[in-house]
Amino acid sequence: MLDASRGRAMITSPASAAVFTMVLTQGPVSRVEIARRTGLSSAAVTKAARPFIDAGYLFEMAATERTAPGAGRPASPLAIQPGREFFTGVKITHEELIGVVTDLRADVVATARRPLAGCEPAYVVAELAALADELRGVSPAVRERCHALGLAVSGDVDKDTGLVRYSPFLRWHEVPLGRLAGAATGLTVTVENDVKALTVAEHWFGEGVGASSFALVTVGLGIGCAVVVEDRLVAGARGVAGEIGHVPVGGDGPPCHCGGHGCVEAIAGTPAVVEAARTALGDDALTLDGAMAAARAGDPAAAAVFSRAGEAIGRAMAAMANLIGPERIIVSGDMPGLAAYELFEDDVRKAFTLQAFGAAADCRLVLRPQPFEQWARGAAAVAIQTLFTLRER
Amino acid sequence: MLDASRGRAMITSPASAAVFTMVLTQGPVSRVEIARRTGLSSAAVTKAARPFIDAGYLFEMAATERTAPGAGRPASPLAIQPGREFFTGVKITHEELIGVVTDLRADVVATARRPLAGCEPAYVVAELAALADELRGVSPAVRERCHALGLAVSGDVDKDTGLVRYSPFLRWHEVPLGRLAGAATGLTVTVENDVKALTVAEHWFGEGVGASSFALVTVGLGIGCAVVVEDRLVAGARGVAGEIGHVPVGGDGPPCHCGGHGCVEAIAGTPAVVEAARTALGDDALTLDGAMAAARAGDPAAAAVFSRAGEAIGRAMAAMANLIGPERIIVSGDMPGLAAYELFEDDVRKAFTLQAFGAAADCRLVLRPQPFEQWARGAAAVAIQTLFTLRER
Ligand SMILES: [Zn+2]
Ligand SMILES: [Zn+2]
Repeated sequence: MLDASRGRAMITSPASAAVFTMVLTQGPVSRVEIARRTGLSSAAVTKAARPFIDAGYLFEMAATERTAPGAGRPASPLAIQPGREFFTGVKITHEELIGVVTDLRADVVATARRPLAGCEPAYVVAELAALADELRGVSPAVRERCHALGLAVSGDVDKDTGLVRYSPFLRWHEVPLGRLAGAATGLTVTVENDVKALTVAEHWFGEGVGASSFALVTVGLGIGCAVVVEDRLVAGARGVAGEIGHVPVGGDGPPCHCGGHGCVEAIAGTPAVVEAARTALGDDALTLDGAMAAARAGDPAAAAVFSRAGEAIGRAMAAMANLIGPERIIVSGDMPGLAAYELFEDDVRKAFTLQAFGAAADCRLVLRPQPFEQWARGAAAVAIQTLFTLRER
Repeated sequence: MLDASRGRAMITSPASAAVFTMVLTQGPVSRVEIARRTGLSSAAVTKAARPFIDAGYLFEMAATERTAPGAGRPASPLAIQPGREFFTGVKITHEELIGVVTDLRADVVATARRPLAGCEPAYVVAELAALADELRGVSPAVRERCHALGLAVSGDVDKDTGLVRYSPFLRWHEVPLGRLAGAATGLTVTVENDVKALTVAEHWFGEGVGASSFALVTVGLGIGCAVVVEDRLVAGARGVAGEIGHVPVGGDGPPCHCGGHGCVEAIAGTPAVVEAARTALGDDALTLDGAMAAARAGDPAAAAVFSRAGEAIGRAMAAMANLIGPERIIVSGDMPGLAAYELFEDDVRKAFTLQAFGAAADCRLVLRPQPFEQWARGAAAVAIQTLFTLRER
């Protein structure tokens, strides 16, 4: 992995990670409050914050209030300097690259897209380099202060090495995307599974802030999921976790591309839904839009197809809630998948409530549409997290 | 909750918890090594260890080796004094109380059992008090230094309040077991779900040591599970987690006592297996032993019943592995359940491998029979953990 990180703030100890994370995700916050919440001493907080202040990542806000007359030196909260560094994030689909530039807080400052005519890795990487260059060209400040590129790809991704082991929709096997993209862009590249990337953004900068456990389920071509437990993204001992699409709720049901059967993805993924609707309506050329239109128009066979998909998703979510007990489940997805979701949201909720065990049924299901730019923002959030990789000085 | 903890070692800070835990689960270990692994300074390690040494929980071993000539003062590893405190643990079933006394390392120093003629809470608590007294009477040292009692109960348990919300096999609803047992025994009582208790023992003192993520699945009357992720037992935001018994692998299959349908417990729990074998063999009085004998004798209908149970359990384990990706899965259970397990272990493994997603299939399945005394030891391990409850001085 190329390292274009010279001059960046670096995390050098667990204390420094704790302090910077807290200001980044919950700031502005006073040193006293940081000490209270992290259990560090005041001196340790001050020592940990110093390099970030010196490097311009954190600053002390003007003290505005005294807590009480005579209460001593007023507290100067520490705050993040969002424009100190910028991050590029790109979501790679089989049809398009969707890119964003964000600041340190993952707020989007620029977006751009690039259609793809194919999925050949060398071609995709060349387009990626062009897109990253376009995005970084948005302003001199961004070009100067953007060193990290996050990439979000569906499928089995080894984040540590930047290897895409298998991405079904891109038809990639063992593509060393991190290395290729690093060489093509000169940036420090991090590659992450797209659902995990979206979850990182939700966890640090979205719906998940303050929830020590939550799950994000995406509905679309595939049914994906990522899980945060005890404030950490569950990675899986072998890199596999959150594969809710392959929870077998369908009994002896349809075979799945994973080699299993009865998987929720084989029932409720967009291709399965389209296939089922074609069979049910006897129309081999039916599209997802056509099936949705028929269901909306009241065709009972079409409605049953969506109902069945919703039930499968609800039961898989219940399986997950029974096993992990997240505080809330955020339901998201790509746009076609989510348009369909409206048709079966009631079935999802009903099946979830019936199958969730005891108090697990009280878990909140939050629907949150995510355009592809949000997925790209997730990739940028993963790049932001590279600041938190412990390095030897 | 009664507090009989006067004079016990207390954890008073995160540093003190980190140091004591490390010596307890991985000791003997030198201060230098503790500092390296925890990220604490040497001074902080020394300060944290001091109260435990003073109270007799930890001691400095004689320094035996110098790392190199002239390398300065030799390292004196810190070690636990196992006999400094003892812990009583009891597993409560609907037929029997199974009790143990352990030392600080959860090594069993005495066992005793008491049959139950009923499940009425007042009666069970009285028998419990008698059993605890018998166990503590094993030696003067134990009586003097045993202040904590851990109780393991199947079902929905609120550990924080000691309330058994619902235990199907005991037919208990909202039983304040912690309070009742505390009043009856004068001990500090902790109540935990039995599978979670067993998992705590495996995590701290068994197969799980060194594995940052693992799951324990128990096969018997019910199908239970507990999950350790990032070295922490997953508790669930609403107290529900690890309910693998209610993962719906059975499609439109049998209704379950939980209100759902197709649950693995409704297919593979002992009562479901017996029921299915009675139907398959046309014998309304068939017992589990009878069904197992028939399957062992080669009766294909009986064999198919166990096969189906094994497949359901394997698919539920795969669902869990796909979602969480544990390093290993320990399969355990009560003795009748595990005797049956031998009949379907091959089916479990085959179904698991087929349904596990990608590298999740490499997860090790470890069969580990656990007599009820091991469950009682789990309850004692939970009591040991009360040492780690942060308290204000
Ligand atoms: Zn599948
Ligand atoms: Zn159930």
